[in-house]
Amino acid sequence: MRTYRLAVVKGDGIGPEVTEAALRGMHAAARRCGFSLDTADVDLGAERYLRTGEVLDEGTVSALRTHDAVLLGAVGDPRVPPGILERGLIVALRVAFAQSVNIRPVRLYPGVQSPIRGVTAQNCDLVVIRENTEGLYTGGGTLAHAGTPHAVAVQNSLTTVAATTDTVEFAFRLAQERRRRVTLCHKTNILMHAGQLWQEVVDQVALRYPEVEHDYVHADAMCQHLPLDPGRFDVVVTDNLFGDIISDLGATVQGGLGLAASANYNVAGSAPSMYEPVHGSAPDIAGKGWANPAAAALSAALCLAGLGEREAALCLEAATASVLAELPSLAGPGMGSDTAALGERIAARVMDVD
Amino acid sequence: MRTYRLAVVKGDGIGPEVTEAALRGMHAAARRCGFSLDTADVDLGAERYLRTGEVLDEGTVSALRTHDAVLLGAVGDPRVPPGILERGLIVALRVAFAQSVNIRPVRLYPGVQSPIRGVTAQNCDLVVIRENTEGLYTGGGTLAHAGTPHAVAVQNSLTTVAATTDTVEFAFRLAQERRRRVTLCHKTNILMHAGQLWQEVVDQVALRYPEVEHDYVHADAMCQHLPLDPGRFDVVVTDNLFGDIISDLGATVQGGLGLAASANYNVAGSAPSMYEPVHGSAPDIAGKGWANPAAAALSAALCLAGLGEREAALCLEAATASVLAELPSLAGPGMGSDTAALGERIAARVMDVD
Ligand SMILES: CC(C)[C@H](C(=O)O)[C@@H](O)C(=O)O
Ligand SMILES: CC(C)[C@H](C(=O)O)[C@@H](O)C(=O)O
Repeated sequence: MRTYRLAVVKGDGIGPEVTEAALRGMHAAARRCGFSLDTADVDLGAERYLRTGEVLDEGTVSALRTHDAVLLGAVGDPRVPPGILERGLIVALRVAFAQSVNIRPVRLYPGVQSPIRGVTAQNCDLVVIRENTEGLYTGGGTLAHAGTPHAVAVQNSLTTVAATTDTVEFAFRLAQERRRRVTLCHKTNILMHAGQLWQEVVDQVALRYPEVEHDYVHADAMCQHLPLDPGRFDVVVTDNLFGDIISDLGATVQGGLGLAASANYNVAGSAPSMYEPVHGSAPDIAGKGWANPAAAALSAALCLAGLGEREAALCLEAATASVLAELPSLAGPGMGSDTAALGERIAARVMDVD
Repeated sequence: MRTYRLAVVKGDGIGPEVTEAALRGMHAAARRCGFSLDTADVDLGAERYLRTGEVLDEGTVSALRTHDAVLLGAVGDPRVPPGILERGLIVALRVAFAQSVNIRPVRLYPGVQSPIRGVTAQNCDLVVIRENTEGLYTGGGTLAHAGTPHAVAVQNSLTTVAATTDTVEFAFRLAQERRRRVTLCHKTNILMHAGQLWQEVVDQVALRYPEVEHDYVHADAMCQHLPLDPGRFDVVVTDNLFGDIISDLGATVQGGLGLAASANYNVAGSAPSMYEPVHGSAPDIAGKGWANPAAAALSAALCLAGLGEREAALCLEAATASVLAELPSLAGPGMGSDTAALGERIAARVMDVD
């Protein structure tokens, strides 16, 4: 029996709860499809940082690297200053493992109500493909004369053909299996240098996918088109910062961050990919059993797909969607079940869906 | 009788139609409040560029500078390559006239339906204050090895204390007259240099406004909070690029770009401020009379306020809102009146509102 080695970073707040629930669903899908998952907990996140002062050490990076994939719950705590975990852990892992493509499906599942009028399960099924290692996330720059009236900040964005091409190729390949339309989202009329590079890469890659149409929407205009007419999009490809923003908008359209999954994907297979719900650690509801494990379970489904276990991935996604459709409310005490019970329901449903 | 000198750039597409309608309302408000407007048309935009190859010449800049304010319709045409008018005209004027503050009210007017469930005239009344001359809009950078597999793009963001302080001061001053809450929107956990400068300026300015509360929301998280809970915001202060994006999101929340007004404001009074609807030139509907002049009329109201004519501004805003509430649909043939007729209705209503 094929066994995959999965590193599990449960993290902080609701991270452990939702990850455990998602793992139940994942193990069930593995059982159903005849493979197994060998999981190893890896201690990273705010809790570890507050305890030890360490964010990410070389030993942990090397240990993670030996796994087939990394499943991450959520990291974060209000006591940790901004940037420490975001840049020092999440972005650092994305870069260390060359996870140049971030995959964020925006899908309204049946039975879930979008906060936007007119958005339905029929017209809301797109995927945001975000470059995941570059742009403004390279973080270079200076703050000179900080704290004085002469302070001036430079913040640099760096964009290479390599990571951009990985991302755009991935988007076109995905679109070819879907509705065959790629939309570049950028702000090429203002970010002329980076914008030209993105547009050139899209035009180049498009030549190799003659059956896939492509068009362009500015990042600001996306804030109208995505909520008001999600059906016009199939695959949206974008840079790191725009992707961060519009994928959160997508999460709103699909019913909330509690339902938004993501994959940080290493296209070359040279290091593990990492799968995480888009939501944070939500310390305010940690331990209450009020967290919806759907985003974690859907991220686990992306993980199965990333491992090549497509059928298992589809089972876990379908099971999660089916349980979601039964919930009286999407989170909190009104959910009708607690996080752990939902994990069990998803696992049981994995065996039933066809 | 006090006379203000107003430069009018009607621009392209629906620009002339909506500007003429807005001017009717403006003149009515002036008449009602006992002052007058001396308007001069200034030829700028895509049409001029396509005719003459010129985007913005020194003579025009000097001519505009002699006016008390600039009213702009919309510029743009699909035949003009991206960036030419955006950077060469709009951004160039914002910079030339030190219009460091962009004011974008997000208000759901009574009778207008938001596309977001639960958003009402009661809970949607905020203002986005956007820095308007800096950040990534400075446009510096390089695209090296363009069109080759080694292409690499650098795009620089520059942030100074001066423009940031103008913007933040303006936000706090405005909040003090409103519901006394300022929210900084940025991505300080990733854009550490620019983010630190923004946070420091907010913390500094806040000391001078002890009655105004302030908090912070990341730009990505704003894509949930702004649509789902607009009532939690009073004044949102943000940088140029985030402001571009989230003010368009705000426009969606308030019922569409057709209702979104903006002011490019020179705080020092050293050059004219410029007022423009957020929507574009919409060449597809130009000349049909289908364009809603509300955004232009509300921008004209901001212009009156900027000139110090507060009562006239309130009259024009109220008249526009009152006419809006009567429209069967917000744009297109279903609007029930054409653009010019709506201008007349707004002008007539200016005389009636109290
Ligand atoms: C935690 C943070 C680094 C991250 C990002 O900005 O990419 C998050 O917002 C996300 O979208 O995954
Ligand atoms: C036309 C363009 C330069 C502009 C911007 O990006 O600021 C527009 O989108 C706006 O928001 O006023």
